[in-house]
Amino acid sequence: MPGRRKLVPQQYHQVHALAFSPLLFQAAMAARNMGVLAAVHASRAEGLLPAEVATRAGVSLYAARVLLEGCLALQLVALEAGRYRLTDAGQLWLFDKMTNVNANFVQDVCYAGAFHLEESLRTGKPAGLAVFGDWSTIYEGLTQLPPAVQKSWFEFDHFYSDSAFPLVFPRVFASRPKHLLDVGGNTGKWALHCLGQDPDVEVTVLDHPGQVDRLQQAAAAAGVASRLRTVALDLLDHRRAFPVGFDVVWMSQFLDCFGEPDIVQLLERGKAALVPGGRLCVMEAFWDRQPNDVAELCLQGTSLYFSCMANGTSRMYHSQDFVELIARAGLRIEADEAIGLSHTLLTCVT
Amino acid sequence: MPGRRKLVPQQYHQVHALAFSPLLFQAAMAARNMGVLAAVHASRAEGLLPAEVATRAGVSLYAARVLLEGCLALQLVALEAGRYRLTDAGQLWLFDKMTNVNANFVQDVCYAGAFHLEESLRTGKPAGLAVFGDWSTIYEGLTQLPPAVQKSWFEFDHFYSDSAFPLVFPRVFASRPKHLLDVGGNTGKWALHCLGQDPDVEVTVLDHPGQVDRLQQAAAAAGVASRLRTVALDLLDHRRAFPVGFDVVWMSQFLDCFGEPDIVQLLERGKAALVPGGRLCVMEAFWDRQPNDVAELCLQGTSLYFSCMANGTSRMYHSQDFVELIARAGLRIEADEAIGLSHTLLTCVT
Repeated sequence: MPGRRKLVPQQYHQVHALAFSPLLFQAAMAARNMGVLAAVHASRAEGLLPAEVATRAGVSLYAARVLLEGCLALQLVALEAGRYRLTDAGQLWLFDKMTNVNANFVQDVCYAGAFHLEESLRTGKPAGLAVFGDWSTIYEGLTQLPPAVQKSWFEFDHFYSDSAFPLVFPRVFASRPKHLLDVGGNTGKWALHCLGQDPDVEVTVLDHPGQVDRLQQAAAAAGVASRLRTVALDLLDHRRAFPVGFDVVWMSQFLDCFGEPDIVQLLERGKAALVPGGRLCVMEAFWDRQPNDVAELCLQGTSLYFSCMANGTSRMYHSQDFVELIARAGLRIEADEAIGLSHTLLTCVT
Repeated sequence: MPGRRKLVPQQYHQVHALAFSPLLFQAAMAARNMGVLAAVHASRAEGLLPAEVATRAGVSLYAARVLLEGCLALQLVALEAGRYRLTDAGQLWLFDKMTNVNANFVQDVCYAGAFHLEESLRTGKPAGLAVFGDWSTIYEGLTQLPPAVQKSWFEFDHFYSDSAFPLVFPRVFASRPKHLLDVGGNTGKWALHCLGQDPDVEVTVLDHPGQVDRLQQAAAAAGVASRLRTVALDLLDHRRAFPVGFDVVWMSQFLDCFGEPDIVQLLERGKAALVPGGRLCVMEAFWDRQPNDVAELCLQGTSLYFSCMANGTSRMYHSQDFVELIARAGLRIEADEAIGLSHTLLTCVT
């Protein structure tokens, strides 16, 4: 009886949707993964009855009903005269790559451990990481995570950095650096990009042992292994100096993996690795520099992953935080440039 | 730089907020439970810097920052010139009783188990219940759940039924029933209400053993034990007839705890318990009969609890579902009345 429905203030809807959000999130994931939304989508504007959805998705009528009703609450589907059809938001949930990458990351990597967010914040440790293993940070355990979890982690990680690399490359390489130090090179996407684009550059990558082993294999496959050096070390052991003699020290989406005191020490170690006149380049996605509130929300949500799963101490930062940390490390920001829509390149000199 | 921010279609915000919703839910809970939102509230319109929030709430600056930023993404707080203040939605999240009851229920009872929603729907069993114990339904284990979990379960259960009892009582008792059978009487709120309001009625309550033991104690305390009879039985063992000879058989927020085949059998057993001319009264909250979309969302969210935690087979129903089930049980709906804002009383006769 829609006629007798009253409007309530939007804030009531907001907080109750929030209260039920973990259940509704699971319904949206199951509706996507079990083919319920795809069945509704295939019916186009005509829409489907719950029994038709059940048949086409190969799920029980009960499963079809509760998932459709959960998705109705989320406005991923609309109901008219007993038939469900997909909304615009439902289409995005089903097909938008960034939405899927975020959702899979939250489900596979974060959901179970996020239950321990409060404990993580009280102790300063990623208490949720215990659902996967007995490590002090997720970086130590990355290559030992279950394959599906690793897949979601790396897809998330790459989604946000890969697109920025081609955009930032010309700026970093305008001065033709001969030796570049990639601190926290991860799977080596940036290092391989540089080696592929500039036939003269030599790149040294620092990271955890698990990461650098994989990278050596990838460099050999790409035929650039002779100009790649990898150094495995505990990045948090600040007594260990970085190798020296670099024109550029590169830190991309790296410092956000650390708390503020560690960031200052890592910047100082990076500074010590530079030749005179060298540049330390920091590329980050700052939440106050995003082009829209969706990108800002994704970064603020990602901070919570750092708290409960990654290390318990880092976050996606506000640009002003970095301005202060860079000054504390004795560096000066020579250039502050937007890279694509979401990233900022801070070029620092001594 | 708000000036350069672009508006994106609201649907993008919706699906990305959904993708991050488990993490953001945990941030909202921790911000409430750790006193972060209360500190912001106490500052009123003036607002607080993150460092001030940390001091007043007694949490680390890091915890204050990530929680404030998570709540900013949820629009529970607003940020102006570096200072956070509570929004209207933040006030509701902090103080609204129904919001708190829902949120505590989802966090304490449902969050961990909801991870197993897809498995629950594939198997027809509440796969998430294993996080608490090895029962086939949550009802068997209710009295053995951890105390904090029980508290959240009962507060949720009572919140939605208690307010309806005084409203529906005059309608059920207009005919002065002498013997009332309360099927699935739970903690006995309705039975005790009837016994207290009508000095002549005798009430028999059917439920699981754990529930009826508690109820006998409560009836003794209220001085009405002489007119209360309790019968412990497995309500799903349909070979066991109910006791007979009742003017009214009462089923309030009870049938929604079962799948459709069981509902038909329970209605048939209830029908067999009636004296000639007796009435079977069903009180339910149907999701299509709610006064606003917030109430509808809460019921659709509750269905997911049934799927993954309670029994794997039941849900909050559409009124048309019940019309059909009641007919299948050989009963006829004599009256269909709204009770308060959310409930419907279906009075059925043979």
